[in-house]
Parts: sequence; C-alpha cells; structure tokens
Amino acid sequence: MDRSEAESTLNKVSFDSQLQEGYQGIRLIMRAILRGKNVPIHDISKITGIPVPAVSAARRELEKRKFLVRSGGATLTDAGLDMLSLIGICDQEVPRFKAPYEVPDVMLDQIAKFDELGEGRPDPDYSLDQSHAISTTCFRRAMYFHENDAIEGRDIAILGDDDLTSLAIMIYSQEYGLNIKSLNIFDIDQRILNFIESISKKFDVEINLYEIDLIQELQDSYKGRYDVIISDPPYTVEGLTRFAAIGAQMAKEYVGAIAFLSYPNLGPVGNSVFFRNISEIGFSPKELIPGFNEYIGAQMHAGISNIGRFFISGENIDVAEMYSGGIYTRHRGDWD
Amino acid sequence: MDRSEAESTLNKVSFDSQLQEGYQGIRLIMRAILRGKNVPIHDISKITGIPVPAVSAARRELEKRKFLVRSGGATLTDAGLDMLSLIGICDQEVPRFKAPYEVPDVMLDQIAKFDELGEGRPDPDYSLDQSHAISTTCFRRAMYFHENDAIEGRDIAILGDDDLTSLAIMIYSQEYGLNIKSLNIFDIDQRILNFIESISKKFDVEINLYEIDLIQELQDSYKGRYDVIISDPPYTVEGLTRFAAIGAQMAKEYVGAIAFLSYPNLGPVGNSVFFRNISEIGFSPKELIPGFNEYIGAQMHAGISNIGRFFISGENIDVAEMYSGGIYTRHRGDWD
Repeated sequence: MDRSEAESTLNKVSFDSQLQEGYQGIRLIMRAILRGKNVPIHDISKITGIPVPAVSAARRELEKRKFLVRSGGATLTDAGLDMLSLIGICDQEVPRFKAPYEVPDVMLDQIAKFDELGEGRPDPDYSLDQSHAISTTCFRRAMYFHENDAIEGRDIAILGDDDLTSLAIMIYSQEYGLNIKSLNIFDIDQRILNFIESISKKFDVEINLYEIDLIQELQDSYKGRYDVIISDPPYTVEGLTRFAAIGAQMAKEYVGAIAFLSYPNLGPVGNSVFFRNISEIGFSPKELIPGFNEYIGAQMHAGISNIGRFFISGENIDVAEMYSGGIYTRHRGDWD
Repeated sequence: MDRSEAESTLNKVSFDSQLQEGYQGIRLIMRAILRGKNVPIHDISKITGIPVPAVSAARRELEKRKFLVRSGGATLTDAGLDMLSLIGICDQEVPRFKAPYEVPDVMLDQIAKFDELGEGRPDPDYSLDQSHAISTTCFRRAMYFHENDAIEGRDIAILGDDDLTSLAIMIYSQEYGLNIKSLNIFDIDQRILNFIESISKKFDVEINLYEIDLIQELQDSYKGRYDVIISDPPYTVEGLTRFAAIGAQMAKEYVGAIAFLSYPNLGPVGNSVFFRNISEIGFSPKELIPGFNEYIGAQMHAGISNIGRFFISGENIDVAEMYSGGIYTRHRGDWD
C-alpha cells in the first residue's frame, strides 16, 4: 500500500462512519490514540474536539478494519500504525505549550468556600441540558470575566445558572473588593433561583432573580438593560442561537455589551452555522478558547466545552459600506 | 456627579471620538491606563485590542476633558480617576492568568538558526502590507500548527510568506524529524520566493514556489490540492476575505482542510463582517487567540495581531437541515 491508497482508505473509513470531520477527523482520532496508547473514548473526544458519538462511530469502523483494538481504551494495531506511518505520522516527542488559563493555587480557598456554600444545590435536570461545571471552571470564568472588564460596575445578566457561576463571581468579587453594579439571574428552574437567593444573602451585592422561559418572547422590561451577558445554553445550534439572540436583546442599546457564550464541540457544519447565525445578530468574536469549561458527567460532550468572548455592538451593522475599497491598507483613507 | 452622569459623559467621549467600541471601549482604555500608569498609545492598543488610530482619537477627547494628561505615555488625572471610581472601577490587584502559548526556552537554538539563515532577507514592502513577524512568533506558529496536526504528511500552502513562516516550519520539522509532504509558497513578491528558494536547499523537503497575484482569479491547477492553508493576509476586511476565499478554493475537496488565518484587531463592525464572510465560504472557527503574532514595526496595529484556526469542510453546508428540531438535546434523535 502507498500513501495515496492509505489516504483513500482512511477517507473511506470517515465516510462509512459518517464523520463530518472526514479524513482530517480520522487522522486526529488515530493520532490521539498513537500518543496516548490505551485511550478511553471520552479522552479522544476531549483531545480532538470531535463529539463523542462521532468518535464512537469512527472507532467502530477502525476496529472493523483491524486498525485498532479495544482493551479498556483504544489501542492501534500494527496495521493501524502502518497506516499512520504511510500518511506521514510518527510518534515524535516535541515540546508542548503549557495549558492556558490555569486557575492559580492562591484561589483554592475561594474554591473551597464555593464547594461549601454550594452544598445542597439542586441536582441537574438533564431534560434541560443541565450539568454542573466543576468548581474550578466557575472560578476560571470569574477570573476571565474580570480580565475582560466584565465585573466592576457592571449590570451582569446570567442566562441559566445551574453551574452557580453567580456564586463564584460573588466570592471572587468579595475577595478582591470588586464592586458589581447588579447581578441578574434568569432561569427556567425555580429550584436554582431559590438556592441562589438563599446563598446570596451572605454577600453584599444587588441580586435579582427572574424565572423565565427563554423560548418565549423576551418581555420589554428585560431589553437593553445589561452590560454583560453570560450563558452556557442548551447544546444544540438552535438553543445556542436562541440564547445568543436573547442576550443581544438584553444588551444596553447605546453602549453595547460583552457576551460570554459556552458552546460544545459541534460538528463542522453545526459550528459554521452557529457562527454565521450569531454574527448576523451582531456578535463580534474576540476570543474562542477550546476546552475552557469542564463538567461533572456530561457524557455526550466528554465533559468539556468551549467558551467564546464576543462584543455585541449597540449600533446596526451596515455591511454595504465595508465593500468600497481595495484590499490593501494603502487603498483606504481610513482605518475602519 | 453620579454614576449615570459619569456613564453618559464617557459615552459622549466615545461618540465624539467616533469609537466603534463605544462606552465599552472608553472603559477599556481608561482601565489600561489606570493599571499601567504612564502608558504609551501602542501598549494601550495591545492591551485593549482597539486599533491604534481609534485609541489615539479617544485619548484626544479624554485629554480635552482633562481626564488624562500626556507625559510620554498617558496618565489619568484626579478627574479621570474620579470618573472611573464613579462607574465602579478601582485599582485592585488580582491574580492573573499566565501568558498562554509561550515558546519554551528549549527552542531558542532553533530561533537562533532562523535568525542566522534569515539574514539578508528582503526588506518589507509596505505597499503590500508586509511587515515581518518576530522570530519567536514564527516558531509559536510552527508549534501551534503541529499541535493541530498540520505538519506531518501534509500538503501545506502558505499564502504570502514575507514572515518566513516556511523557514521556521522547516527548521522545526528537521529538529523533530517531522515529515512534511510538500511546502507550497504563494507570493506576489519574487524577492521573497527567491530568498526562500536559496535557503530551502539546506533542508530535505519538497518545496514549490509560485509567483501569484491573489487578487487575480485562481488558476485551476492550484485548486483542491492542499490540506493546510496558512496566511497572514493584507489587513483590510476585503483582503482578509479575499485570501480566505482563495484558501477555501485551494482546500482538498473531499478531505477538507485546516486553515490558520492571522488578522488584526478590527473595529467591531469590520470584525463581525469578516467572520460572517468567512463562515459563508465554509470556515468553521475552532480557536481564536488574541495577540498571538508580534511584528517588528507595524505601527497601525501596535505590532500585534490575532490568529484563528478554522476547519474548512470539503462538503457543502446545508443550512436548512439545521433548523428542524427543538433547542434542547432531548428533542433530537441524533447528535448532529
């Protein structure tokens, strides 16, 4: 077998497993197994950013062709190793980047306080796609929000808060003397609102709790009122788009807002559609961080998701005016 | 003066300086000055992600109202500090995340080799928006490409290579025994192609050099041929979109491709339009890293730019099929 036969074999594998990521996805999966040796399916999903059911289908096809065997996790056979070698992938040791966005140890006390106060929180309601982020993730978020000017003096809206991100924000802000203007929690689940209300009394912060079904039309009193929109929506393209659209309506009209959206590893099509949708409603992407959020459970998504930071402009976007000049800077009179 | 008067004053400042980032942008600029004390305009731009000319206009308006003075860099006056305090911003010390994507010291020898081999390279042609990335940036890219399976066994296309990213890839791959399938450099500037040709002889890699004006229609022989598309295009929305579109045409048809696009801190409108444009041509965003690239000079963009990693699907995106179900996962029969 030569390289191009190996490529078409792997292409066929991706086709038979209906993998949207195609040949590229099969390479990523096999590379993850090569490096990790005996690798559980959830770890493959985490490393490759490919959803668990898709990894599972690909693994079945690779197994059928005897490129891998399962013994606990997945391991490549000699035939599998040969395939990788034919397409040019070997098992070299190279220097790696350090994991970004690590929560520093100095915050462990805050995390302990979070765990203590969070005891007795309601169990996740899986029918609403709830699943709890781990405590460290909540503080990673609080730090990241503050790094991006989203806490001090802010009217903050959290759309769905089964993760208790609000609690982490309160502990973090108290610790460093950050002054929140108001913390506004919107949730369909009264249990969560009640729980947050009970713990919020320990903090000196204006907190407002609203029971709301975000599938319904947003009432006018919530529109145009918030500087910061935080959400970890239901993990479908429709759910993500819907929550983002509500967030855009909640953004202060003249000043705009900063939005933080958590979202899963969608297939390439879903991911493209999601980004097209939200750019149409005025979300301007500033940073996307893979694997930022970690969850307890959340099987389908391998217990991780990504976070995006967006600027929502208060002004309308006039697309036409963007297409008048040449492509090089020298063709234009102005920077924007 | 109370909080809401302070907010409308700063909002007015943003309006008078025609700052697209509005009130949010003024806050970011003032916060950067608060933290850094005497801060040069380019540093403010780097920290805030707001383009230099926009920061400059905002600084003029803040100076006019006596919220800041200039003495080398910008410094807040007592009146400026009062404004920040009114909107809730104080100068607290909080733990910070470590800088992500640092190139490890173990690669310093490779960087030295790059600097040595790169001596005598052609000077930047500013009329083509050329400006050289610093050597460390080129190796940060090489590491990042390999981490994302974009080097081994790959047909790599680089669209414009005045940065000599190809040289960093060659040194890095030689060091770790990574086997590139082919390295293909497309540039309008024959000086750059000649220089790369002269140094490439020191490496055992298939390298192809093409003089090409990417504003012209792409000839068929370049279409559908590459796994990896790398570009640091001219920094206008039109230029970025054009280079991305060419990249999409170059991507292998059935297997798709991985694209790495560098892009500047655009205003919110330009940024939205850029992302809308590229999602329409099939770019699915996987990661966006602010400030990834650093340049020598490049005044307008404060010497930095961002990088985005994208998956270009080989298949057509059928948007209609994405909108059939409910928003929660339980409403759907399947993961995609």
